[in-house]
Amino acid sequence: MESPPPVIISVGTTRPIHYGIVLYPAFQALDAFGPLEILNIVSTRHLINLSIIASSKEPVSTFCPPGDHNPLTSQCSQSVVPTHTFSSPPADLEVLIVPGGFGSREPYIKETVDFIARVYPSLKYLITVCTGSLVVARTGILDGRRATTNKMAYRKIAEWVPSVEWVPKARWVVDGNIWSGSGLSAGMDVVLAFVEKVYGKEEARYVADAMEYERHTDPGWDPFSKAPSGDGAGS
Amino acid sequence: MESPPPVIISVGTTRPIHYGIVLYPAFQALDAFGPLEILNIVSTRHLINLSIIASSKEPVSTFCPPGDHNPLTSQCSQSVVPTHTFSSPPADLEVLIVPGGFGSREPYIKETVDFIARVYPSLKYLITVCTGSLVVARTGILDGRRATTNKMAYRKIAEWVPSVEWVPKARWVVDGNIWSGSGLSAGMDVVLAFVEKVYGKEEARYVADAMEYERHTDPGWDPFSKAPSGDGAGS
Repeated sequence: MESPPPVIISVGTTRPIHYGIVLYPAFQALDAFGPLEILNIVSTRHLINLSIIASSKEPVSTFCPPGDHNPLTSQCSQSVVPTHTFSSPPADLEVLIVPGGFGSREPYIKETVDFIARVYPSLKYLITVCTGSLVVARTGILDGRRATTNKMAYRKIAEWVPSVEWVPKARWVVDGNIWSGSGLSAGMDVVLAFVEKVYGKEEARYVADAMEYERHTDPGWDPFSKAPSGDGAGS
Repeated sequence: MESPPPVIISVGTTRPIHYGIVLYPAFQALDAFGPLEILNIVSTRHLINLSIIASSKEPVSTFCPPGDHNPLTSQCSQSVVPTHTFSSPPADLEVLIVPGGFGSREPYIKETVDFIARVYPSLKYLITVCTGSLVVARTGILDGRRATTNKMAYRKIAEWVPSVEWVPKARWVVDGNIWSGSGLSAGMDVVLAFVEKVYGKEEARYVADAMEYERHTDPGWDPFSKAPSGDGAGS
């Protein structure tokens, strides 16, 4: 019922085409779907192929088992279908997104951690959202590098992995080819900043407008670094 | 590794427990997952059971077939697993969320439209995001009522369903028990406003902080009502 969006075809550029995201049980929904919405929109204007990679092709759920993070045993979760597995990943992966979530602290994500360690040397870019930076930190890749994370979980994570130069006040941090966003909704800002770098300012503006999202363009903007809720509960 | 979040148990209130969302092919990812992230967080503090309702239990994809909305034939989409079907919906549904997306204009969502028409009389609240208001408008429920929608699609939708009192400049609109949000990321603001009404101001603040989201609390805030991209391409 309406005219098609303007198309900008990438020809002869080195823009990435092959994107991937890893999912593990108890990932955080918005950590994944903020960035993925951005890729979905960019993919209508530039060729993008997305792989959703997990330990098997069984749907992966955001569900937190009853316990500290689900004390009322609410049944409120979403399951997403992977397209690839860690043992049979896509060829030519160029950009990998790593979301956070309560699963990020769990021993059961070892396969995810190992996959990231294995694939990182061939990536052009690695993007983390929220405690996705903890998942990557568990590989050792972030040792001595600057990164940020969820601000409600910040202090615990900084204690747990002191070998990373954690940045306490940042919407996002770029260190080499690793882009790390703060908690949850910051995933949209770090990926829009990435879109600006790779596809240009106008493209980032178009995507933010299409999302009706008032983006933060200053990587130092971070009121949540002093949120009164402070420490501990962050996903 | 960290202390559990504070729990506020709802006792003796009329707060809803049974939430649902409808999904249909080519729904918009953030329209669904902005609100769902909010419910996921609230569900750690108040009992919430979420049903994901679709025409069958097959995963529902955001994928837009090659054409106007996917001119480059990108393979960039996500599939979500329903918990219920339109023919066997959950009992006691109190709040229903209707996301938008390119599917909202399609004849193939008739089952979704019919389900909403059938279930609306027993709902406490109906929440739409983006062109989710078009899906609901197709039932006739919005005739003579105020609602808003995606601003890049606004004019076409207002032409298509003139029986609705469309509000051209609004982050969200409340008319009776129908809450309609503007495009994509506005879904977070309308649902946070809903959380504030139902669970209180402090709860909405907690959730926005946990999401590291700078929410818009003014329903009249809407810079996208005059986005230069204007008309047509909105999802």
